[in-house]
Formats: sequence, structure tokens, C-alpha cells
Amino acid sequence: MHSYLSEADPGTRILRRCDELAAISKPGAGVIRLYLTDEHKRAIELVSGWMREAGMEVHVDAAANVVGRYAPAQQGNPSLVLGSHIDSVIDAGKYDGPLGVICAIDCVSVLHQEKRRLPFGIEIIAFGDEEGTRFGTTLIGSRAVAGSLLANELSIEDRNGVSIATALRDFGIDPARIGEAARKAEDILAYVELHIEQGPVLEHRNLPVGIVSSISAQIRKRVTLTSEPNHAGTVPMRLRHDPFLAAAEIALAAERIAAGIPDAVATVGQVDVKPGAINVIPGHVTISLDMRARSDEILTGMVARIDGEVTRIAEARGVVLKTVTILETRAAPCSPDLIGKLDEAVRGAGIEPLHLPSGAGHDGMAIASLAPIAMIFVRCEKGISHSPLEAVEAPDVTVAVEVLQKFIRDMGEGQ
Amino acid sequence: MHSYLSEADPGTRILRRCDELAAISKPGAGVIRLYLTDEHKRAIELVSGWMREAGMEVHVDAAANVVGRYAPAQQGNPSLVLGSHIDSVIDAGKYDGPLGVICAIDCVSVLHQEKRRLPFGIEIIAFGDEEGTRFGTTLIGSRAVAGSLLANELSIEDRNGVSIATALRDFGIDPARIGEAARKAEDILAYVELHIEQGPVLEHRNLPVGIVSSISAQIRKRVTLTSEPNHAGTVPMRLRHDPFLAAAEIALAAERIAAGIPDAVATVGQVDVKPGAINVIPGHVTISLDMRARSDEILTGMVARIDGEVTRIAEARGVVLKTVTILETRAAPCSPDLIGKLDEAVRGAGIEPLHLPSGAGHDGMAIASLAPIAMIFVRCEKGISHSPLEAVEAPDVTVAVEVLQKFIRDMGEGQ
Repeated sequence: MHSYLSEADPGTRILRRCDELAAISKPGAGVIRLYLTDEHKRAIELVSGWMREAGMEVHVDAAANVVGRYAPAQQGNPSLVLGSHIDSVIDAGKYDGPLGVICAIDCVSVLHQEKRRLPFGIEIIAFGDEEGTRFGTTLIGSRAVAGSLLANELSIEDRNGVSIATALRDFGIDPARIGEAARKAEDILAYVELHIEQGPVLEHRNLPVGIVSSISAQIRKRVTLTSEPNHAGTVPMRLRHDPFLAAAEIALAAERIAAGIPDAVATVGQVDVKPGAINVIPGHVTISLDMRARSDEILTGMVARIDGEVTRIAEARGVVLKTVTILETRAAPCSPDLIGKLDEAVRGAGIEPLHLPSGAGHDGMAIASLAPIAMIFVRCEKGISHSPLEAVEAPDVTVAVEVLQKFIRDMGEGQ
Repeated sequence: MHSYLSEADPGTRILRRCDELAAISKPGAGVIRLYLTDEHKRAIELVSGWMREAGMEVHVDAAANVVGRYAPAQQGNPSLVLGSHIDSVIDAGKYDGPLGVICAIDCVSVLHQEKRRLPFGIEIIAFGDEEGTRFGTTLIGSRAVAGSLLANELSIEDRNGVSIATALRDFGIDPARIGEAARKAEDILAYVELHIEQGPVLEHRNLPVGIVSSISAQIRKRVTLTSEPNHAGTVPMRLRHDPFLAAAEIALAAERIAAGIPDAVATVGQVDVKPGAINVIPGHVTISLDMRARSDEILTGMVARIDGEVTRIAEARGVVLKTVTILETRAAPCSPDLIGKLDEAVRGAGIEPLHLPSGAGHDGMAIASLAPIAMIFVRCEKGISHSPLEAVEAPDVTVAVEVLQKFIRDMGEGQ
């Protein structure tokens, strides 16, 4: 451990460990490390070793999360939980998830080197599944810890027909006991996660770190617009009921409405136009609408306004409208108290704290039902994520881990 | 012949012949009768028989068009050419093409019954290929007659690898002599084609027939808009360079510009959005633009305005623009003199003549280089064409054929 801490500055040594963990991957263009696979097992071993080196007691919980515990000054006190996930998407980068786990271990390593104990314990959880890549259902690890995983989800199968239950059993875990991964609220003081931003805001504002205000609420819809396909040459403009032009107006209305609401976004990512011939006016168009905002109330208001425009546009153009809601998740606001403490730590690094929403989902969404949550975002290059091009700079990581370290110590002082 | 004319009113007997010709088809949901196929040969036999019955001399020309000739009062005088095509798209209706040929034969049948000769000959041409279904290149029949078919087009192959040259040879025609199908301008007085509208204007105006002002000029482009795909949750609206929103603005701008120009249309029929994930801001969008107007000048002006908007929108949104022109055809204006004569014939039927452009292409586009052209449009149900649902009403066909008959006789009086 001493050699780990002395060999380089924090950012450099943390990025080296990110490289080391990224090497545990199925062959691919980027990192491929899925829940309950051989790569997961090897990642657990690597991370467990780092945790032990940092003076932590380590176990793998009933949902295959790695849990390291750095004991408090006084036995029986609750824990500050730090963490993130160690699974990946297909062809992922090295930092989405692992950076948070490795930075947390770095913080504990320093405390351990100083032989310093805090009034609370520090637990680091390396969640086994956040991305949902293997089973299509996300946050399996953190929902197991929060006790919000549904029993019937154990039957969900991967593309090879292997259920979560079978995969747990093959991993050496009794699926019937997965409930034992659930933690009690009174044992957890707070959950704090450090993560790459996966967006361009910090780069745009020229800041190494930011503080998350809330993990956004999300509503996804599928909008279908139908009329009759027709000859592109023979139908005058005024007699048309072109569903693609309705879709175009809807996409621009959604943009206009979202742009007028702080921290809100709306995206049309899927567009299907039929029959799709160059000389035929479309007859059938389907678009997706992904809408996010920092609170449930703001999102509900925004979606109502967008829905109103969708209905108005479809009526004005004389096309048949069908709308289906396909996803709805609640916002997970970060704790104002924890945000205040993170503000102090960021100011301590000589940086004016920027609060920004997390439009992407994170483990904190699940843990929010158990404890107050907070998140530190680290600038990433061009906001690129879920790609081998994902990149962070060592000096930024140094700032981020120092903020996390100061936050932990300040919290210790405050107890 | 007498029995044909006496058995029913003109509309009914003409639609019966349309049914009879439609029965010559490959099996399918609708009519399938392609150039230089066995169905084509059987259609030639049927149509030739009808022409002979109407007192015409018939031959199949060097491009497999059926040419019937009703001799003038004085040998050597030029001909009024009537016609349309007898090939079809896949799963076509019964009227697109055949209606014009069968109505023309009906007119000559009546003249023949009356033993009436006109100062000019009347030729009816049933073109073998207009749709381009088999070889992908359109108007083979009428371009051969106009002398504008290119020699290298004989090498164009169908999807089975059979060239036009080979198909002609298999049909009993020497492809090297296809040039003999070309006609001399001095032998042709005018070309007049009766055709279903293939659009909704006549139905909308509650008129059985209309007179074509011009076969529209056409320009087709492919517009590609590129930036970087990005996370739909993490990129604030103001930092986005969403190429789909640029495409949406372009489609609406094209609509707005075309709607402001009489008889002009612009259509986005193909839309491809990549990567096409619900939670990813698109990075790559391709759309088609099909633009048509009644004259080359008007189209050029419209396309310049749309191009200007495309460039402005792409720049404003910070997306990379690439535009390719993939088709450009010139307008074929109808002869003002012939339009005036058709106006008279329509008024003679107690109908106020409506002039409308033909946004669809027709054999007249090719023949325009040889002789003045004109077209009579017949109302079709809901404007549906290229579909087994294509429908016309017998009373409308009666009006249309009476207009054509009166036009022919008036032209005879005027000589």
C-alpha cells in the first residue's frame, strides 16, 4: 500500500488502476465486463485486494457486490458509503463506474496510511450491475442493497437464456438469499458517488469537477403518426397530411420547451419513416421522445406541455396520433446538506462549485430510498462516454479525489 | 366492332376493356405486366385486335410499342398521335396507362363506325415501357419513338441479368434496329394523352376531368447532416448539435417555400437517423428532397431558396452538411394551342376547364422533343395510384372520352 501511495500523484496512480481494471475484459473494441461473468469474478478479486491493502474488511454480498469496510473509531457506528459500479456496457471506456470505486479506495488508503479513524465507518461498494447490459434490467446491484429488487426479476434471462437466478448460482451465490444484500437505513449515514460526467458541461465551463444537484426524472414515449402514403409529385402541398412534417414540428416543439426549462432535456433519438421512398409522401412515422428534468414536478409539467403540442400538431396536420409511455423513473434529488459539504470541499480546492443535474442514471437512484445521496462529477473529454474514446485527465482526477478526501474528513470533524 | 360500341355507354365499355387488359398479368396482389415479357406479348395481341377492329393498320415498332394508324382523308398527311403505356409497376391498378390507350381506341372506333376520315391521320401508340419497372430506366418506349434513347442503355440489365438488348432479341426484335422506332417531327402534328390524375386535385375540386398545364420539372437531392452522437440525458439543449433537428427544420422550410409557389411541391420521403437509440442524440441523418415545379425556371428558383435554407440551418445548428443531386429532369410544358382546344372541348361538356400540373412523369415528357403535347387527366378515387386500389368511375370516363372525341373532331374542322 505504501508503495501504491508513494509511486505517483493521486490522479496518475488512480488512472493506472483504471487501466489495470480495464484489462479485465472480454476481447472487444472497448471494455466488456458483464454482471456475473468470469470477468466480473476477476474484477472482484482485483478490487478486493485493493480494498484489503487500504485496511478494509472485504466481503462479496448476496448480490455479488464487493463491500469493503473501514471500521469507525467506535464499533457499531453507522457508515458513510462510497461507491460506484464495476460492470460495463459493450465496448465501454475505462472510467464509467471504476473511477468512483478506485477514487474511494484511494481516499481510504490515505486515511489508513495516516492510521486515522473517523467517527463513522467508511464502506465502499463496487456494485456488480448498474448498466443492465447482460440482463436488460439496470441497477441490479444497488437495488439489491436498497432492498428494492423484485423477486420476479430473478427469472429475467440474458440472451443465452440464462436467468439471473441461474447466473447467481453459477457464481457461487444462492439466489434465494439475495435479499440478504439489503441494508438497513439506520446503518447508512449517506451515500456519495464520484463519477465521470458523461456530458460536456464541465468541459464547457472549464471546471475539473462539479456537484450533482439531482439525478433527473425520466419519461420516455413512443409517438406514432399515421395518414396515407401518397405520390410526392401529384398531391398539392395544401392537401397533404404528411406525418413526417408533424414529427418534425413535434421534435422542434420538444426542443423549444425543454430549452426553456433549466436542466431539462428532450430528445428524439429514433425516427422511422414509412414507406421510405424518395417519391412517396410518408404515411407512417414513429419517433421516440426521451424527456428528463431535475424533479418529478418539473418533468410532469414539461411532459404535459410537450403532450399538448403533440396533440395540437397532429390535429392541425390531420394525422392520426398514438402515444405510448414506455419508461417513467422518478428523480433522485441529492441531499442539500451533503451538497453544502461538497461545496465547501470544492471551495477548499480553490474552485467555485457548479451544481448540475445528472441526466444519466446512477446507482444513487436506487440508494436514495435508503440514505441521503450526493455525487461528484469529474470532467471527461468532449462528454464522450459508453465508448472506448472515454477520457479523463489525471490533474482533474487529483482535484476530484482531494475534494472527496476533504469531504470525508470535514464530515468526520462535524460529527 | 359494332357490338363493342353498342353494348354499353362509353365509360362502361372502356372500363370493361381495362378489366380485360388487367387480366393479363403475372400473379400478384395487383397488375404485374412488365416490358418485353410474355404478359407484354399477350397485351400487344389484345390491343392490336382492338385497334384493327377500330379500322386501324397495326404494327409493333422496333421498341415493341404497338402502333395503330387510322388513315387520313388524304394520304401523306401527318398524324395526330394519341397514346399511353401498357406496362405496369408491381401490384399496379388497372388504369395507369391502359385507360389512355383504350379511350383513344374508343374514339377511333366511333369515327370508323361513322366512316369518317379527318384531314390528318390518327395514330395510337401503346408504349411498351413507361414505368421502368423491369430495367430501372423509365420511358423506354416513348424515348425510342422520340429518338432520345441512348445506345448504351441497351446494356442495362434487369434483376436477372438480362439486358434490354437480349430481352428485345428474345421478343423477336433486333436490338440493333431499335433506332427505327424513332419518328420524324414533320410526321406528327401533336401528341395527346389521356391519363388518370394519380392525385387528389380533381376529386377535391369535384371535377371529372382536368387539363394538364405542364409535366413538372423535377430535382431530387440527398442531404446528409452529421455531428457527434451523444447521451440524451447529459448534454444540455444549448450545447447540442442535433442533426435530426436540423433535418426537421429543413423539411418544414421546404414545405413552407413550396407551399408559397403555385403548383410546386417538395417532399422528404426518406429519413435515416443514426445511431437510432432512444437515449442517444442522433449523430448522422440523411434525408431525401424531391422538388417539382411547373417550369424549369420556377423549379430552379425554388431549389435555390431551399438550398439557402439548408445551408443556413446546418450552419446555425453546427452540423456538417453534404448535399448531392441525384436526379434532374426538365419540365415538359403542354402546348398553349392544344390546351386552348381542350378547354373548348371541356366547355362543350358543360364543365369549366381546370388547368393543373402533372407532378408525375408521363410519356409526353419524351414526345415533347418531337411534337407539341397535351394531356387530359381523369379523376381517380382519393388520388390513389400504383396500387390495386386505383379506381375511376365510368361516368367520369364517359366525360373524358367525349372530351377527347370532341377535341379530335374540332381539330379536324380547324384544319
